[in-house]
Amino acid sequence: MEEWTVKVNHCAVKKEKPQTDQLEFGRIFTDHMFVMDYSEPLGWHDARIVPYQPLTIDPSAMIFHYGQSVFEGLKAYQTPEGTIQLFRPEKNLQRLNRSNDRLCIPAIDEAFILEALKQLIYLDKEWIPSAEGTSLYIRPFIISTEPYIGVAPSHQYKFVIILSPVGAYYKEGINPVKIAVENHYVRAVKGGTGEAKTGGNYASSLKAQETCSQKGFAQVLWLDGVEKKYIEEVGSMNVFFKINGKVYTPMLNGSILEGVTRNSVIQLLKHWNIPVIEEKLSMEKLYQAYLDGELEEAFGTGTAAVISPIGQLSWEDKDLMINNGTTGELAKSLYTTLTNIQYGKEADPFHWVEKVSEAYAVK
Amino acid sequence: MEEWTVKVNHCAVKKEKPQTDQLEFGRIFTDHMFVMDYSEPLGWHDARIVPYQPLTIDPSAMIFHYGQSVFEGLKAYQTPEGTIQLFRPEKNLQRLNRSNDRLCIPAIDEAFILEALKQLIYLDKEWIPSAEGTSLYIRPFIISTEPYIGVAPSHQYKFVIILSPVGAYYKEGINPVKIAVENHYVRAVKGGTGEAKTGGNYASSLKAQETCSQKGFAQVLWLDGVEKKYIEEVGSMNVFFKINGKVYTPMLNGSILEGVTRNSVIQLLKHWNIPVIEEKLSMEKLYQAYLDGELEEAFGTGTAAVISPIGQLSWEDKDLMINNGTTGELAKSLYTTLTNIQYGKEADPFHWVEKVSEAYAVK
Repeated sequence: MEEWTVKVNHCAVKKEKPQTDQLEFGRIFTDHMFVMDYSEPLGWHDARIVPYQPLTIDPSAMIFHYGQSVFEGLKAYQTPEGTIQLFRPEKNLQRLNRSNDRLCIPAIDEAFILEALKQLIYLDKEWIPSAEGTSLYIRPFIISTEPYIGVAPSHQYKFVIILSPVGAYYKEGINPVKIAVENHYVRAVKGGTGEAKTGGNYASSLKAQETCSQKGFAQVLWLDGVEKKYIEEVGSMNVFFKINGKVYTPMLNGSILEGVTRNSVIQLLKHWNIPVIEEKLSMEKLYQAYLDGELEEAFGTGTAAVISPIGQLSWEDKDLMINNGTTGELAKSLYTTLTNIQYGKEADPFHWVEKVSEAYAVK
Repeated sequence: MEEWTVKVNHCAVKKEKPQTDQLEFGRIFTDHMFVMDYSEPLGWHDARIVPYQPLTIDPSAMIFHYGQSVFEGLKAYQTPEGTIQLFRPEKNLQRLNRSNDRLCIPAIDEAFILEALKQLIYLDKEWIPSAEGTSLYIRPFIISTEPYIGVAPSHQYKFVIILSPVGAYYKEGINPVKIAVENHYVRAVKGGTGEAKTGGNYASSLKAQETCSQKGFAQVLWLDGVEKKYIEEVGSMNVFFKINGKVYTPMLNGSILEGVTRNSVIQLLKHWNIPVIEEKLSMEKLYQAYLDGELEEAFGTGTAAVISPIGQLSWEDKDLMINNGTTGELAKSLYTTLTNIQYGKEADPFHWVEKVSEAYAVK
């Protein structure tokens, strides 16, 4: 809403920033954070940027009991010229509102939040690392805070955005991983919350992840919860397969997260005149393609890794070695093009990039 | 562990206690709470009773993002003689550890926590209401607190117990409710977290609950997530049906919560020589029994309501009126016997009740 403004309370002392080699994912946070509250009849109100600080919440608050929460993940990039860029942030905010709807959380004003986010980023812009592959990870999230332990949608919420400088995902170049098809645990099911970005989906995935890690796999490939036949996601990424020159990815079905990177990869492939097929994709079909020598590449897509090649896929007693366990040409091209656009090193034909200019400097 | 003790920090000023007619569910909390922390390599440590107070948690703590949490719900009752009683608390703590296992949360020491819980209850015993049907609701819960937004099991947790005096569930006598069979949304699926008491299950149920409320139903009857044919739970309760003199309840299958009241009802029925059948129970079969005039009673079971009769069940375009929309004799008997045992008004042949004696007074 146009009349909204963000109050700003600057931190007294700026924290020391990490060296590039100290950067990992999600452990260090910047000097400020954005906070906004929801209560009735006020609605969303009191939008503010404040020093990064702990949240003080009643132990009866719903978030601690019934998991009513949603989140997003996106990044800010620094170009070689020092410009700050976001990558399709409106897609994340649209998805946040779709998640809100599924979780009975009141919608946020996407345009206002994007403005507020840019102010926050500009204020903490010194935290955006500049080394190859580094970025500023942005984590918006909403938690239910009503101090009431009845099972019902909360009447109070807190919307928070925190920022974390992160290191390069691939420190030694893009590398393929070993994946196990998960036959026991299920991530999500039609009619559940699989297409929402909500905590419960991730909580329920931990056990499968722990079990596969112990067996030496990086992630699991999730099958559908109904028939355990159809491919859904890999770890917390969407998944793509190149089969005989065409690219296949599971179609959105209500239990698969609609990834922003997934959407961007599909657009890029179409732009390159590579056929993309979104369909209900079974492990049987994939295995047959493998036996026929037609499974050329497999990779996950997500904000953190951008493209994560799959070198080996373990399914029941079978081991599928893909592209000799090396990164395929298509995965490499997608990774290079997407990151080049994100870092402003290549033209942006789709207008995906949004600059965070000096106009967002806090007065 | 025997060597463990609970440090106690008394509140400075006791809060005013609510009048009986002000009591509802889960909005008022007592003077103290139990807290214990987990970190590595210490394990669970620093068990303490402290004044009821907000939790101060970093905004990057995992609970706010990935929903890694579990909880329990049980009650303390005051007998007519003023004795304080718990109902099968060891079952709740066993289930808490089963939930912990599913959610990759380190196990708690059940015996120690039961001792600590009794100390907490004895300390706040003046909060246990004595009017008919009132009780002290006990909410143990564990949240993941590591300040890290990577998707992985947390290395830090907080275990908290809060207490809430609650009013009678049935203020005007036990009354049947209208239930809608849920055909769109799914609560849980085999391979998911349905049998764990974790936030995500409840978060995912809110939308269905909201939708059915708008149509005038009290709760939904959940079907299985795979075939949407088999009955699982009702609202957040287990469900029973009396058909032609026998009692049926869905068998535990990994997606149904193993309720303590469910288990107690089954034991009571067997004790009364009423046949109990735990099986995969389809809506088709239930509807056929209804058409045959054999569906005699239906009711939910849970800690809050104990027994919640179902007077009407709406399934697709069909309306099943059960026992003329009134509470059945079996539901009444179960309710009376269970509550009489809980409140010490009837013999306890199963040794379900555990007293909280003066031995637990904080020195």
